Amino acid sequence: MISVGIVGGTGYTGVELLRLLLRHPNVSVKALTSRTEAGRRVDDMFPSLRGHTDLEFSDLSLDLLKSCDVVFFATPHGVAMKHAEELLAANTKVIDLAADFRLQNLAQFEKWYGMQHACPSILQDSVYGLSELNRDKIKQANVIGNPGCYPTTVQLGLAPVLKSAEALVKPESIIIDAKSGVSGAGRKASLGMIYSENADNFKAYGVAGHRHHPEIVESLENISGQKGVFDHILFVPHLVPMIRGMLSTIYIDLTEAGQIADLQALYEQFYANEQFVDVMPSGSSPETRSVRGANELRIALYKPQPTKLVILVAQDNLVKGAAGQAVQNMNLMFGFAENAGLQNIALLP
Amino acid sequence: MISVGIVGGTGYTGVELLRLLLRHPNVSVKALTSRTEAGRRVDDMFPSLRGHTDLEFSDLSLDLLKSCDVVFFATPHGVAMKHAEELLAANTKVIDLAADFRLQNLAQFEKWYGMQHACPSILQDSVYGLSELNRDKIKQANVIGNPGCYPTTVQLGLAPVLKSAEALVKPESIIIDAKSGVSGAGRKASLGMIYSENADNFKAYGVAGHRHHPEIVESLENISGQKGVFDHILFVPHLVPMIRGMLSTIYIDLTEAGQIADLQALYEQFYANEQFVDVMPSGSSPETRSVRGANELRIALYKPQPTKLVILVAQDNLVKGAAGQAVQNMNLMFGFAENAGLQNIALLP
Amino acid sequence: MISVGIVGGTGYTGVELLRLLLRHPNVSVKALTSRTEAGRRVDDMFPSLRGHTDLEFSDLSLDLLKSCDVVFFATPHGVAMKHAEELLAANTKVIDLAADFRLQNLAQFEKWYGMQHACPSILQDSVYGLSELNRDKIKQANVIGNPGCYPTTVQLGLAPVLKSAEALVKPESIIIDAKSGVSGAGRKASLGMIYSENADNFKAYGVAGHRHHPEIVESLENISGQKGVFDHILFVPHLVPMIRGMLSTIYIDLTEAGQIADLQALYEQFYANEQFVDVMPSGSSPETRSVRGANELRIALYKPQPTKLVILVAQDNLVKGAAGQAVQNMNLMFGFAENAGLQNIALLP
Amino acid sequence: MISVGIVGGTGYTGVELLRLLLRHPNVSVKALTSRTEAGRRVDDMFPSLRGHTDLEFSDLSLDLLKSCDVVFFATPHGVAMKHAEELLAANTKVIDLAADFRLQNLAQFEKWYGMQHACPSILQDSVYGLSELNRDKIKQANVIGNPGCYPTTVQLGLAPVLKSAEALVKPESIIIDAKSGVSGAGRKASLGMIYSENADNFKAYGVAGHRHHPEIVESLENISGQKGVFDHILFVPHLVPMIRGMLSTIYIDLTEAGQIADLQALYEQFYANEQFVDVMPSGSSPETRSVRGANELRIALYKPQPTKLVILVAQDNLVKGAAGQAVQNMNLMFGFAENAGLQNIALLP
Repeated sequence: MISVGIVGGTGYTGVELLRLLLRHPNVSVKALTSRTEAGRRVDDMFPSLRGHTDLEFSDLSLDLLKSCDVVFFATPHGVAMKHAEELLAANTKVIDLAADFRLQNLAQFEKWYGMQHACPSILQDSVYGLSELNRDKIKQANVIGNPGCYPTTVQLGLAPVLKSAEALVKPESIIIDAKSGVSGAGRKASLGMIYSENADNFKAYGVAGHRHHPEIVESLENISGQKGVFDHILFVPHLVPMIRGMLSTIYIDLTEAGQIADLQALYEQFYANEQFVDVMPSGSSPETRSVRGANELRIALYKPQPTKLVILVAQDNLVKGAAGQAVQNMNLMFGFAENAGLQNIALLP
Repeated sequence: MISVGIVGGTGYTGVELLRLLLRHPNVSVKALTSRTEAGRRVDDMFPSLRGHTDLEFSDLSLDLLKSCDVVFFATPHGVAMKHAEELLAANTKVIDLAADFRLQNLAQFEKWYGMQHACPSILQDSVYGLSELNRDKIKQANVIGNPGCYPTTVQLGLAPVLKSAEALVKPESIIIDAKSGVSGAGRKASLGMIYSENADNFKAYGVAGHRHHPEIVESLENISGQKGVFDHILFVPHLVPMIRGMLSTIYIDLTEAGQIADLQALYEQFYANEQFVDVMPSGSSPETRSVRGANELRIALYKPQPTKLVILVAQDNLVKGAAGQAVQNMNLMFGFAENAGLQNIALLP
Repeated sequence: MISVGIVGGTGYTGVELLRLLLRHPNVSVKALTSRTEAGRRVDDMFPSLRGHTDLEFSDLSLDLLKSCDVVFFATPHGVAMKHAEELLAANTKVIDLAADFRLQNLAQFEKWYGMQHACPSILQDSVYGLSELNRDKIKQANVIGNPGCYPTTVQLGLAPVLKSAEALVKPESIIIDAKSGVSGAGRKASLGMIYSENADNFKAYGVAGHRHHPEIVESLENISGQKGVFDHILFVPHLVPMIRGMLSTIYIDLTEAGQIADLQALYEQFYANEQFVDVMPSGSSPETRSVRGANELRIALYKPQPTKLVILVAQDNLVKGAAGQAVQNMNLMFGFAENAGLQNIALLP
Repeated sequence: MISVGIVGGTGYTGVELLRLLLRHPNVSVKALTSRTEAGRRVDDMFPSLRGHTDLEFSDLSLDLLKSCDVVFFATPHGVAMKHAEELLAANTKVIDLAADFRLQNLAQFEKWYGMQHACPSILQDSVYGLSELNRDKIKQANVIGNPGCYPTTVQLGLAPVLKSAEALVKPESIIIDAKSGVSGAGRKASLGMIYSENADNFKAYGVAGHRHHPEIVESLENISGQKGVFDHILFVPHLVPMIRGMLSTIYIDLTEAGQIADLQALYEQFYANEQFVDVMPSGSSPETRSVRGANELRIALYKPQPTKLVILVAQDNLVKGAAGQAVQNMNLMFGFAENAGLQNIALLP
């Protein structure tokens, strides 16, 4: 049994962490902080938790957090990096669900997030928490940069072909047409987020540039071992009138070797031992509701034209795309069963 | 052709007024004001208007507004009453879509809206703009208090029985279980309004008391000519995960006379000459989508138990419940065809 | 570990039973039948189950079902009563999620369901499965009629005042204005159920009469011990554009004793030991999303007028209103922890 | 004033035609047929039309239809081609909203629609009704094949670059990632269409092949005058949980000439005189709600990478993608103002 702290418990990733951790067999949630709600019971803000916890929000007290074995930061970008050093010194591990430890490239971080990094040396030792691809490093890590939601779909969707010994695809041709539910934008009082602006509507956003673009590029470079070839890939996110769920439709040109390869078999083998990544049978169409509330990601492959591969990747942006993967990483770091607390079946319908 | 001004054009009633008035055959929109958006083209904020207008938002200039024949206030409560006197002095008529001229009872106004009334003498001369019930007064009016959305359904739903010479119902027994789409809460950056808090969810609100309660009481007193009997009626509003639309389910006890009366015929006769009020055939269930975008209100009657009448009333809260009724009132005030600019058919599906 | 069969696994209550039972610590699902899908893997039809089961649908074989300890019928009305006798003879318990064992009044059953009852003698011995109110009988039962979704909210919403030694309310005054998500209508290819007919829309249905009305009347008679007083209560259901969730707004007149009683305290005491019934603090508004996917029911009380009580009751129609309560009943029947398999926290947002 | 017939008035394109034509200044709707609903008032099926028409459905009588000036077929594929010849012989023009007159390539028609063409000679004389691109031919046409919804967005989205004298784009590189609201699937009692299967969900469909693919290929060949280069383009449609609306995100590689061209200016000039095609300012994101209910199509251009053009195209699938464009074509055929009956402003919110 370890004790856990959550910084920033009033957002959607915060309450999603609570949903998972309050039912986790190896965990006790000890601290939950909020700048604005200190002293308030968390189940007063989130009545779905009534009967499951007596926790109150507290001010961000480092002494309390340092008494935890691990602290999740479900905060805006820039918070975790301010406190990581002190927590590490107290032997408290850190899992940041924001971007502070996602990008090793400091120039890109500063460009896209508009701030200087507060602890570059800790960043160097941090591990990028894409559980399936970095499992061994995560087990040894003290600081995790939990991946962005879109980048998770892209990496798991492309890893089998990018890691293949043979060149199966043309990496510079990648186009990612991604679609997300509205909860991905967080729990914020913003005019653009209100119901009547989003329901019964569909649009693209961030077409000229999105923060997840540099994360996608850097992560694909690491996966493939190839630098420079992903700089001009396209990533176009869209907003879907639904609460949770994310589908990325990935287009990539096949090499001649890729055109004759059995890619379905390749993917099935690559993920044969992964319980949270599901390569669906040929002809399937992964629906976001098939992973609603579950730490699962489903993939389907199509070759509608001989030279083109279409990869469909679905996940719940708040689970495998955020809080669920964070818990999966915690399980790896502490030697728990990787699926501890993560075995819920998706809510369908 | 009259010239029209709109104060507060950035909210949902403002843009709905524009949708109707820009296609109105007798009207030219001359002024559109916004404190925050002066100088910005309105179709930049609302791309649905691209190709239909070149209007820009301007600062609230009384000189400009005074050059209009009529000014609509699509503003928060308390704005219209500050400017009404000066506009009237310039022979500019005023239609307020907020509550400034809805309640004659000043004590109730102050209690529920938390402010003193700025022009009680103008209030006395103002007319409550429930078009079908106050048509003659509206034709003569210079200041209109446009009704609240919920009260519109309640008044038109109950008028035939309350105005009947015979006592058909027990007025003190009224229960109004009302349901509204989210646009009724306006276009505001509020946490409670965001998509992920409202989609796939249903709840009651304002159960302990809602501002439309005193308006319902006062208007039913005026309709029935009976004071005091409505003080303890119940009004419980609920929030539906849809953009537009309102359904009030009204329960009322029948007197012995009411139990044997042909209420269906009574309603059909009462509204026989009304083009915007539709008494549906017995057994119908008015759906909110059947009035989506249209200045129409549909009613159906049920007697599931011998002593109880159930009245279902549907409207689009932004049209017959707000901007459409305001235009209908303007048509009456200026002697235009009552349906001018209001003949669109509802958008279904 | 008991073995379980599910008859009719292709509907929403069927897949919801699977979601709960596949993660239940004391249960193994042995049989899953479907007339139309025999031989098909269930996770082919419901991809949310991929990775959680290898079950295939089978034809309805009584031999297979008789080898189970308990069989759930997630079928249309009229199926369970055909097979109950043979299953009981083989010591297999029966839990019917349809209406076959809900009504003791055979005339009402025939009137509302349009069929003769196939096994009146078994009906007599069956137990109505409202877990909290009939717990002792359920523990001894061999056949359970699992309550309808609406009646569950009404009974749990009214039990504390109806069971009070003192007459606190006037039972004949009850009005139930109920609202349900669309999944309550089941998984059927019906024009009235399609997306474009239900989204962004709200309506009443069944106003002239609904099958849950006689069930509500009979169950309230049993709860209160009073016959005849509920015959003229009103029950008006509405359809909400959301998948899951149900809110009943119940109106009831208070007696003089009821007007001075501390009803909040009464309700809190009545349900003090119930883990699935939550009496919320005064002033709360239960939202359906606060129970989405969870076997919970939340209640809030209001006295907006001195003589009137308003009771708000929220549940997930597929969980506490159907499959979850069925599992709760199974737990009682087999002596498992009452919350076994039912501890999931609601999915919010 | 012309008289109009509609065959197949019970589907969504049928009722949408009625919404537009009942308010059209030059049109009288004389006949409305339905196999299943003959004798029923259309406003009984579609209460949104109450107060706007007394029309009843009639059986499909060719005598009645032949007395009309033009007949719209809002029917399944294969109906219009059976009756076109007889109608033409009676000087009645035909506008088919299904696919009977969309494809000149008979082999493709038979392959994708599974039927032989009934009147190839009439097909040869028919005109493909993409109003803006084929205006002159449409004015002379007696038979119109009204375009598919997806192909409309693709053609208007690509015409400016494909028709440019200079080669600006690489046509073989086209990828169309398209998203549609559920009404595009029609008004059919189908399990896959029901609310609880589509709400709060997102998925791709038809990835391996969709009927609009050959229509896109043939139409782009006609627009560009280039054969063969579009055979391997990708078209992947997705289903959005909204009623109306369609957004196509089109990706295309730029030639060197295209990389330096001012494409924004090119598009603005190309559509300068088109009132229904809106080239939005640089940086805009067309939302589907900005055209909800309106016969408008909005385009925005992005060059997120130097060699790639991203074209966003939004329309209402039932208006510019179906019934609205059909009315626009009728206006052209009969010499009415092109915007007659089509000037409604989109419903926002």
